[in-house]
Parts: sequence; C-alpha cells; structure tokens
Amino acid sequence: MIPTLDDIRAAARLIDGVVLKTPFLPAPRLSELTGAEVFVKYENLQATSSFKERGALVKLSSLSAAERDRGVIAMSAGNHAQAVAYHAQRLKIPATIVMPRHTPFVKVAATRGFGAEVVLEGDTLADSQTAVERIMAETGATLVHPYDDPKVIAGQGTIGLEILAENVDLDAVIVPVGGGGLISGIAIAVKTLAPDVAMIGVETEFYPSMWAALRDLPAKCGGDSLAEGIAVKNCGALALEVVRRHVDDVLLVPERAIEQAVAEYLARQKTMAEGAGAAGLAALLANPDRFRGRRVGLILAGGNIDPRLAASIMVRELAREQRIVAVRVFINDRPGVLADIARIIGEQGGNILEVLHHRTMLTVPAKGAIVDVTFETRGADHAVEIIGALSDGDYRVEQLDPPAHGA
Amino acid sequence: MIPTLDDIRAAARLIDGVVLKTPFLPAPRLSELTGAEVFVKYENLQATSSFKERGALVKLSSLSAAERDRGVIAMSAGNHAQAVAYHAQRLKIPATIVMPRHTPFVKVAATRGFGAEVVLEGDTLADSQTAVERIMAETGATLVHPYDDPKVIAGQGTIGLEILAENVDLDAVIVPVGGGGLISGIAIAVKTLAPDVAMIGVETEFYPSMWAALRDLPAKCGGDSLAEGIAVKNCGALALEVVRRHVDDVLLVPERAIEQAVAEYLARQKTMAEGAGAAGLAALLANPDRFRGRRVGLILAGGNIDPRLAASIMVRELAREQRIVAVRVFINDRPGVLADIARIIGEQGGNILEVLHHRTMLTVPAKGAIVDVTFETRGADHAVEIIGALSDGDYRVEQLDPPAHGA
Repeated sequence: MIPTLDDIRAAARLIDGVVLKTPFLPAPRLSELTGAEVFVKYENLQATSSFKERGALVKLSSLSAAERDRGVIAMSAGNHAQAVAYHAQRLKIPATIVMPRHTPFVKVAATRGFGAEVVLEGDTLADSQTAVERIMAETGATLVHPYDDPKVIAGQGTIGLEILAENVDLDAVIVPVGGGGLISGIAIAVKTLAPDVAMIGVETEFYPSMWAALRDLPAKCGGDSLAEGIAVKNCGALALEVVRRHVDDVLLVPERAIEQAVAEYLARQKTMAEGAGAAGLAALLANPDRFRGRRVGLILAGGNIDPRLAASIMVRELAREQRIVAVRVFINDRPGVLADIARIIGEQGGNILEVLHHRTMLTVPAKGAIVDVTFETRGADHAVEIIGALSDGDYRVEQLDPPAHGA
Repeated sequence: MIPTLDDIRAAARLIDGVVLKTPFLPAPRLSELTGAEVFVKYENLQATSSFKERGALVKLSSLSAAERDRGVIAMSAGNHAQAVAYHAQRLKIPATIVMPRHTPFVKVAATRGFGAEVVLEGDTLADSQTAVERIMAETGATLVHPYDDPKVIAGQGTIGLEILAENVDLDAVIVPVGGGGLISGIAIAVKTLAPDVAMIGVETEFYPSMWAALRDLPAKCGGDSLAEGIAVKNCGALALEVVRRHVDDVLLVPERAIEQAVAEYLARQKTMAEGAGAAGLAALLANPDRFRGRRVGLILAGGNIDPRLAASIMVRELAREQRIVAVRVFINDRPGVLADIARIIGEQGGNILEVLHHRTMLTVPAKGAIVDVTFETRGADHAVEIIGALSDGDYRVEQLDPPAHGA
C-alpha cells in the first residue's frame, strides 16, 4: 500500500519534537562550485546522524502493545540499525539487530550503545536474512524493513514537507537512492504539493538497481562503493512503483564524483557527509550543464563515515589540487645532496612533509640513490615552479602522479 | 560607546535576509560525551564559514556614501578578512585587506576571490599595522576593526537574539574569546533579556589576554595555538568593559582540549570546527563537573580549518583511542618473519596500515632488525590482545606511544 500525502502529514505530527526538523539552508560555496543555486537539507545532524530515524520511528510507533512486547528486529550494518536501536530504546521496545559477521566493530558498538541486542550472523546482508527469519519465528518479533514498508516511506516523506515549508521555490530535489524509501516518501509529498519541482534520484554506478528496474533490465551490481549506504542490489517494490509514477529521472554517478562530493562538503560547507549522503552533490558535479542556474535542493542524507576514510579523502583532494605534491629525485649519493634539495624546495616556498631516501633500488645506478619528497604547495602553478627549480638545480625529477578520483 | 540592546535589534533588522540565521540545535551525542545538555549554534554554515560577517556587514552598512567611495581597509589573515571582503564586494565598496607576508596562500586566495585587494606586508599582524596606517592616510579608507568597534559588537550580538528566540531555557552560553567582540555583543543581548543565563568566555591558555585584563594582570601570551582565531594578545577596550559588566567567568582551556573538541565535533556531530570555533566544547571537556546536567549553548564560531590539519586531528584521535596502534617488533632478520607477524595480527582481527622494516639501527643486534607496524584495532582492549598475541609468538614488542592531546 503506497502512503498518501495524508499518511506523510500524520507521520510528521507523530515525529514532531522527537526527530529533529533539520535545517534546509543555502550553500553559496557549493553554488559557486557547481553553477547551480544549491540548498542543503542537513539530515546528518540527526541524533544518529542520518534520516533513517524518521521512518524507523513511524514504524515503531505504529505497533500494537502486544507487538511492542514481542520486540522488533532489523537487518542492517548501517544507519538503519542505529536508527531502530535508538528509537526502540526510547520507546522501551526490545530490539534485535542482525549484522553480517565481519561488520566493523565500531558499527556494532554504536548499535549496542543504544541498547539493542546485536546478532552477528552470515557473511553478507543477504546471508543474514536466514538469521532474521529464524529469530522472527522464535520470538514473534516484528521486522522493521529499511525501505519496503509504507510506514517507513511515510516517515522519510516528512523531509519533503519540511523542504516545501521553507518556500524556496526549488526547480529540483536530488535524493540518494538505495532501496528507494527516501526518494519515494519525498516524491509523494513534493509531487502532490508542488508537481513542477523535478524529482531526481541518484545511484552509484556500482549499484544501478533502481535505474535498471525502471528499464526492466537486470542490474549489474558490485564493487566496493564509497557509498555503502546506497549499495543495494534490489530496490524496494513499493519504492519502484512510486518512482515510476513520481520521479523524473534517476542518475548514475561515478565513484570519483562521490569522493569529490564528500571532500567538497568538508572543505566548502564544513559538514561531514558519508558517501551515500553526498550522492546528490556528486550528481551536480557529474552533470554541471544539466543543473546550471537552477535552484536545487540536496538531501545530505547521512554523515556516518569512518574518520580514517574521511581524513584520507581530504588529503587525497589536496593531492588532486596539487596542494600536496610528491616527486622522485634521482641523485648522486654524496653528502649534502638532500640538504640542497630541501633548500631549493624551501626557497621556493614549498613546505616539506615527508622524505624517503632509497639506495637499493635497481632502477638507479650503483652509486646513485632516489629521494622521494612530499611537500605542500600553493597549488598547481606553484608545484610547477618548485619542480622547475629542482630541474634547474640539475636534478632529474619525476612527479609521482596524484591518485585519480575514486582510484 | 557600548552598544545597547536597541543597537543589536537594529543590527538584526539590517542583516536580515543577507547574513544567515544559523541553526541552533540540540547535539545529543555531545551531551552524552560531556554530561551537559548541549545546544550548538552553527556559525560555520555562514557563506564565509564564520560569525564575522555579522559585525562586518553592520559596520559596512553604517558608512556614508562618501566613506563608501573611499573604501574600507581591514587587517586580518583570517575570518574577518573574508567577511569584510565578501560583504564589501556585495555592497560594491572597494576593500583592502592587509595580511602578514607569510600568510598561507590559501587564505590570500580566498580573500582575493571575494574581490578584495590583498596587501602582504609585515611579519606579524602587529607589523602590518604600519601598512594599514599608511594606506588609510593615502586613500582615506575607513578601518573595519575586527572587534573594538560598537557597530561590530552590535552585529555579533545578533547571535544572542537568535539564540534567545529559540526559547530553550539555557543555563549558560559559552563563547570563544579573542578580542572579545563576539562575547560582548552576545552578553549585552543575553544579559539584558535573560539575566539568569550565565555568560562564560573561553580563551586558549596560550593567549589569556581577557582573563588577565579582568584581573589587571599582564597577559603572558605566546605559542603556536591550534585556535589561531582567538590567539589575540590584546583584547578590545570596549569588549573588556562589557565583559566586566556582563560576563560571569572567562575560562582558560588547554590546547589538548581544543584539539579533542575539533575531533569530537567531526566524529560525533559531523561538523567541521576550527580550533577557535571549538573552544566552547573544549571548555565543557575540560570542566565536566561544572556543566554536568546544565543546559549549555555553544557558539561554533567558525569552520575555517586547514584540511590537512583537520585530517591529522581525526587520525590522531583514533591513535589516542588506540583504534590505530603502532608497535615496534624486534626480530631476527630471516625470511618469513614479516609474514609471521602479519599473520598473527591478521588472525587477531587487526588491519595492517603501514609497515617499516629497519635493518641499520644500532639499537638492534647486527643480525637483528626492527619492524614498525601500524594497524587498526577495535579499541584499546583489542590492541592489548593483538600485542599479547605477538608476545606469545615470542617476539619482543614495544608499543609506540600515541601522541598526547595537544602534543
């Protein structure tokens, strides 16, 4: 049963004062970057750092007293797990979360921290399905599906109402698509109340499940996506029906655009987006002509990214901008050479970060050596100047390539 | 002349629709961390990522037509520079920004990007003062002071009005203190309308200028603070007067608390704070007993932190939590030993990040060698397990110490 606008309005009343009405704000520096007029809905500011609480809370609140006593179960290693655990604890409903066995401990601990029982079983989410069915049979627990449920879709749809309430006269709303619960809820609200606003979905090209389903094609899914929150092989049946009716287009974005989007959210907008959460911005970056000059609302769906991954993305972006540059210098291995190289780089205003001095590589003469130097620059032009100065100092220099986006 | 509540209300009308009314929201994960009930005012979401636009715009708007024609000048390498440049450009007022000669190019470029003329002169901000005076004499430009100006203070005070409008019944507002413009504006608004709310200032212990001035002591300032935005040697005369009257206390926080606060904002609240912007959270972390159970508003004053520094802070925090651990293993230098070490770590669930194999250090026997291995763990307990397994494998193992906060 597809939820209606009234269902979404009821959901909004139900979550009012419990789930955060997140800000929806202009992002001028992202506008400057993309050429569109960008507004961002900050769902990463929710208590568990994603929009998933909306649907989870609506579903939990719909249960009868008897159902609450028997508890709920969900299968998720990500944002849905935390959202269900957090609100089940608030409502004193016992919650069991099934995760694949090799789920990173941090995610297990976060979910246990909200009082849920975590069952680690199976090698993938699909394998965990049997554990879910067994536990449901044993305990009579109710499944809280992450997307293919009308209550959940109605909950996610409250985002659409909140956006429209801001009266910013949008041309388009761009929404990450995994199972499709988020976009279908928002699309019902937006297309009922403001049919002229374009509804655009985004998937990573590694998992084009909705894109393929719309075309009645089999989806070729796979790969270690940065956007694991939307790395879903089978989109929801309800969602597919809503998307066919209410969504104007589903775009596929390359992983490198997702990585850049995470980096730009941090550098320009001072906010942390997980890969899936940044997919909307990735769509703008990958399709600048399509959205130039248009007023676009992005759903920053979640911010749960591993800190080490976020740190690495920030530094890789500096490498791409050549604000961090690595060069290999071929030298005669005599005293004073390293000092000379360091002097040249310093005089040019480069700031040395790392030095590696090799002597045993067969690619250099027996009496030669290699120095790999990583330094900070003011940008690509400055990098060229510094490398030029090293060449003028009669060193053979090779720039070590920065990684490509998504590489 | 100290601004009044009416001046602040006039400032609020003036900036309405131009400067962002930033969100002021509960931050449950920071509450869990600190024991206080935390609310955050996200000034890092402004177009130039700090609160400085408020005061700058009020000052610029107060200029006569003749003054506008002659242009404005400011001395800043930071947020004030970008704020003045951004709004001067909007108002078509020529702007000159004087910065010390060695200002990082990124900051110069950001300010030039807003159409300002940047003059690089002097070795420190104090040295740049002479350049400012010379240019003022030559051009008749009006100085936009970063804090010691009633218009600027009135502008910053609009934050106080916005916070009070949210009706969250706060016990205290905690504000970073550099020159004191921000806290004095907010304090006038808050103490006039809600005198029971405690006003607390925060300085880095490296620059206790307001703290010392309140006690008529000379301030011992110096050191390379993470919070360069509040690393101010002389607080403003107007600010000092307001703070004496309206501020309950000024706290000094250690650099290690500022570093942790930046890391916690990123990890828990998914938002990027610069060191100065995170000082309020640092005060909560450094004084947990004082604020436990109290409803506290934090001003996240700005988010302009160097991406490389932010990345490094995130990774250092993981090292402190022992989620990244480095060990030194002393080995006999024979084939297969490295494989054995890698096997043990892998079997224990550790994820190897980096390996350095040394052979020429004099601290090991001639036929021995050292392997430094950095790996990811699930936390401190897991680190102990992995190190124990290496010891059981008959290796001599030393854990390489994680850096202390602020070290």
